[in-house]
Amino acid sequence: MTEERARVLVVGSVAIDWVITEAAERPESVGGSGTFFAMAASYLAPVRLVGVVGRDFPASAIADLRARGVDTDGLEVVEDGLTFRWKGRYHKNMNSRDTLETHLNVFADFDPKLPAHYRDTELLFLANIQPDLQMRVLEQIARPRIVGLDTMNLWIDTAKPSLLKVLQRVDALLVNEEEALQLSGEHNLVKAARAIQKLGPHSVVVKRGEYGALLFHGDDMFAAPALPLEEVVDPTGAGDAFAGGFMGWLARAHEPRGDQLRTAMIFGSTLASFCVQGFSYDGIRGLDAARVQERFSAFARLTDFTRAQL
Amino acid sequence: MTEERARVLVVGSVAIDWVITEAAERPESVGGSGTFFAMAASYLAPVRLVGVVGRDFPASAIADLRARGVDTDGLEVVEDGLTFRWKGRYHKNMNSRDTLETHLNVFADFDPKLPAHYRDTELLFLANIQPDLQMRVLEQIARPRIVGLDTMNLWIDTAKPSLLKVLQRVDALLVNEEEALQLSGEHNLVKAARAIQKLGPHSVVVKRGEYGALLFHGDDMFAAPALPLEEVVDPTGAGDAFAGGFMGWLARAHEPRGDQLRTAMIFGSTLASFCVQGFSYDGIRGLDAARVQERFSAFARLTDFTRAQL
Repeated sequence: MTEERARVLVVGSVAIDWVITEAAERPESVGGSGTFFAMAASYLAPVRLVGVVGRDFPASAIADLRARGVDTDGLEVVEDGLTFRWKGRYHKNMNSRDTLETHLNVFADFDPKLPAHYRDTELLFLANIQPDLQMRVLEQIARPRIVGLDTMNLWIDTAKPSLLKVLQRVDALLVNEEEALQLSGEHNLVKAARAIQKLGPHSVVVKRGEYGALLFHGDDMFAAPALPLEEVVDPTGAGDAFAGGFMGWLARAHEPRGDQLRTAMIFGSTLASFCVQGFSYDGIRGLDAARVQERFSAFARLTDFTRAQL
Repeated sequence: MTEERARVLVVGSVAIDWVITEAAERPESVGGSGTFFAMAASYLAPVRLVGVVGRDFPASAIADLRARGVDTDGLEVVEDGLTFRWKGRYHKNMNSRDTLETHLNVFADFDPKLPAHYRDTELLFLANIQPDLQMRVLEQIARPRIVGLDTMNLWIDTAKPSLLKVLQRVDALLVNEEEALQLSGEHNLVKAARAIQKLGPHSVVVKRGEYGALLFHGDDMFAAPALPLEEVVDPTGAGDAFAGGFMGWLARAHEPRGDQLRTAMIFGSTLASFCVQGFSYDGIRGLDAARVQERFSAFARLTDFTRAQL
């Protein structure tokens, strides 16, 4: 079964976070966009991970990824270096946070070299790293069928020419609301998405945290809500888990047609909703197909209404 | 036809606004929660309006309401007074605003006395006014089938006992996110809604502006998106237009069952989306059933996805 399925490669950060919320503090919380993406996507498709860690990265986390079937041959371990670290504090409402510290460590000199057997990967997700690195990974994939990309305000500010260059080869851009506005220079989100589509990506996914996500695909629009939850433990990685669910479904669906993209948005929302229910990747490590399916159905119920006639 | 339909009574402000946006300034823009609600609801049900204005209120606005079939017998005109006035400036993103001036004028001494023929009204909406006034109107309706209520931070701060008293007799509370949190004392929206349900309302509708609205009904949840628009002219009154569409559909649907409440949320979103496309009530005055139906269908398309199986 698995051998016949399209695979998803993600390149992104693999990190040790220090997460502070109103309720708790986790000083050694394994995180990173690549980690969250890989865990989430693993419920839908075979995943290959590209990243770098230092000697301080827990072997148990690599074992957890492998237990989910993630191919970690592309995860470089630098023995004389330390893992990328991020420290942040969430506000009481869990919707916003302050970054307290960032240490690039081994990530500063990261030069991704993909294992030879990664070259034939069908779907590629370039998580939020420097755009020149994203391009270097893209160039090592022979014929990617679908390319997704995430980025952030830092790269829009400091590496826009490189970002615009890689965007030309991207099918789906996944960013948050502020990033979409900043990248396009627009104040209106619809105008922003239409402007970004002209830069390359046929699909623009705008992530809005607890407000859900919007998909702009060609002339079409789709709104996916977030699942309202009574308790949010740790929002870290929710956007990356969303991307994992989104790309994971597209790996199954083969063609990125509108209908499949809509379903992919709901699988993204599904994995994101699990992610925020635990610290680190706790919320997305012990799931199975039945639980993912059940949560997907909760989104169907959340959005269902009768098509009334006046 | 119309005679057989359940009617909706709204009590709320009828105002002259001074609206400033990035693109334009409208110093004499007819507004008020009662006005926006009545215009919006008029596409779905017969509407009765209770409010007060001064000698400066334009006769043309009353004529516009009557042209939509709104019964304005309950709109008191105080010849030696001035209409309630609000002045505000929207921020560039149109999501937030600053109130620059508020003049209660004739609204300060408002003592609603309903025309005798209003007494048999089936659906009642208590728009955002002082809770004791809301109660006084409620007491003048013989047997209201469904009671909706809106309120604001000011009344939660200054008149909470009165608000809690009237809430006991309310079926559906419609408030924004901050108001729901403030009223309940919770930081989480789901917990807030569940706490508010214990105060009386079986249904809690949380309005989130451009992010849409959530319905909590019994144990059920429903998420309605806002329609992403390329141009928002004036957000003033969108929440009241939402309430008008919501209550208007319930007047047609008779029983406030879950399915009907979901459809009502989409009619609320439909009227709100029209409202923000013009200043004052320009966006909701010249519609017809076909245009309302067409916009409703746009929401169906916006949220539609295939129920996939893993």
